Amino acid sequence: MAIDMVSIGIEYLKQKRSEIDSLLMEYMPPETDFPRKLHEAMRYSVLAGGKRIRPILCLTAYNACGGRDPEIINPAACSLELVHTYSLIHDDLPCMDDDDLRRGMPTLHKRYDEATAVLAGDALHDLAFKLIARSGSAEVVSELAWAIGTYGMLGGQMADIDAEGKETSLDDILFIHKHKTAALIRSSVRIGAILAGADSGILARLSDYGEKIGLAFQIVDDMLDVEGDQQKLGKIVGSDCKNQKATYPGTVGMERAKRDAQRLIDEAIEICHAIDIDVTNFIFIARYIGMRES
Amino acid sequence: MAIDMVSIGIEYLKQKRSEIDSLLMEYMPPETDFPRKLHEAMRYSVLAGGKRIRPILCLTAYNACGGRDPEIINPAACSLELVHTYSLIHDDLPCMDDDDLRRGMPTLHKRYDEATAVLAGDALHDLAFKLIARSGSAEVVSELAWAIGTYGMLGGQMADIDAEGKETSLDDILFIHKHKTAALIRSSVRIGAILAGADSGILARLSDYGEKIGLAFQIVDDMLDVEGDQQKLGKIVGSDCKNQKATYPGTVGMERAKRDAQRLIDEAIEICHAIDIDVTNFIFIARYIGMRES
Repeated sequence: MAIDMVSIGIEYLKQKRSEIDSLLMEYMPPETDFPRKLHEAMRYSVLAGGKRIRPILCLTAYNACGGRDPEIINPAACSLELVHTYSLIHDDLPCMDDDDLRRGMPTLHKRYDEATAVLAGDALHDLAFKLIARSGSAEVVSELAWAIGTYGMLGGQMADIDAEGKETSLDDILFIHKHKTAALIRSSVRIGAILAGADSGILARLSDYGEKIGLAFQIVDDMLDVEGDQQKLGKIVGSDCKNQKATYPGTVGMERAKRDAQRLIDEAIEICHAIDIDVTNFIFIARYIGMRES
Repeated sequence: MAIDMVSIGIEYLKQKRSEIDSLLMEYMPPETDFPRKLHEAMRYSVLAGGKRIRPILCLTAYNACGGRDPEIINPAACSLELVHTYSLIHDDLPCMDDDDLRRGMPTLHKRYDEATAVLAGDALHDLAFKLIARSGSAEVVSELAWAIGTYGMLGGQMADIDAEGKETSLDDILFIHKHKTAALIRSSVRIGAILAGADSGILARLSDYGEKIGLAFQIVDDMLDVEGDQQKLGKIVGSDCKNQKATYPGTVGMERAKRDAQRLIDEAIEICHAIDIDVTNFIFIARYIGMRES
């Protein structure tokens, strides 16, 4: 990719991220509404920043597949960021990963207390369904529920916790990463495409694309936890190791992890070239996932 | 109500409860599916029994309003029991009410561990949306999400926790009970009616009915925590007092609490008489709520 294409891609992501930030600000209940502490806590976690990669994927798929109604896609796209944030809040709890820092700020149970963190996570989980239902499509509600349920994200989280301190095979780690992370990223793309009325051929290819970049995303995440810059990441480097987490580089080594992540990104881009829609932004996103530093 | 009407009512509730129990058994992921521990934990909590009052109300409303498709109503009705159970699991956590006993059995975090209890609650929350989406109606997804979000159940739970150990007014306790309990009971009736295509007049009256019996239900719950039989209740009596919870009898006294609960039930029945559908079962349910011992 030529250097000017890289900057166009970065510009696209920056612009979409800023759009999502504004929408989230609008969709979150105001802090002045009762119960104030709960609404404050929800906003604290969601508006602390983040790459917004899931909503951006959803918007990108919707637009690329010919969708044109912001009233339908905007709440649906934002619902994906809310479920992601809810999962982080519950993951950070003392009984789970017991993390103190997230996006450069104290985790929610550190800033408030555990009860508020449990309820704020629940509230974001709920708000996500409230928002996605505004699309009027029960099909995407179901898609989201599958992606984050026990056959998706939650199944991956449970397997992740159970694997702590144990020897893991490549199959184990692939199961965890595909469920914990790739399932929601894949569905982010699918929800955008479904809402735009994409045909089944396009949907199948975009699903494969989503699965591959989702898996690559988590492998890169694991690598950053070893080699990343704490300042850029906004969370404590080495926490996977401290928590005896099953990680991709921990299982196959750093060199192989890098190679596999790059291969997945190359495969995702190859899939894009076989889809008969404008895939420029999908390629940007795949490249970004390979080179991200936070 | 003559004695034979009471037994017909009790028979109706028993039969519906048994239907719901079978449906829940069918809809819950099997324990043999990975991740086993999470699916086991979900089944442990949901299949431990319970009055199933929310799904029964939903089925009753659907049938009374002329709905006839079990494929639509059964999953939606069960979704209400799942959100109720999820809220109990998270409520029982050490950082919340720290309860050890529920439905005569150890609470989930006692039986397993806290991480599993957080995730199982999340998983039931999610499964509820998966089930209700099977109705094909984004409108009822939205109705459920509002009922259990920060302007409904979760808002009530936050207010409930914040009120612990504090002096509460009648207004405070009404806010907590209307949100924590009545919102979901009201929506249980509404979801059944909406799915059956009830007109706005009937829907409005059924909403009022649901709100009144919902509030009565929580007042009776508070009274049972003082005067109830631990064996029948399956939970520890006096836990509200121990946890310095804001309760209705604690705020206005036991005599007034009994009177108010009865008045709400009488008003609910009066509303029924003004609705032009067969309201026999709604009246049974209102009466049952007033006389329940568990």
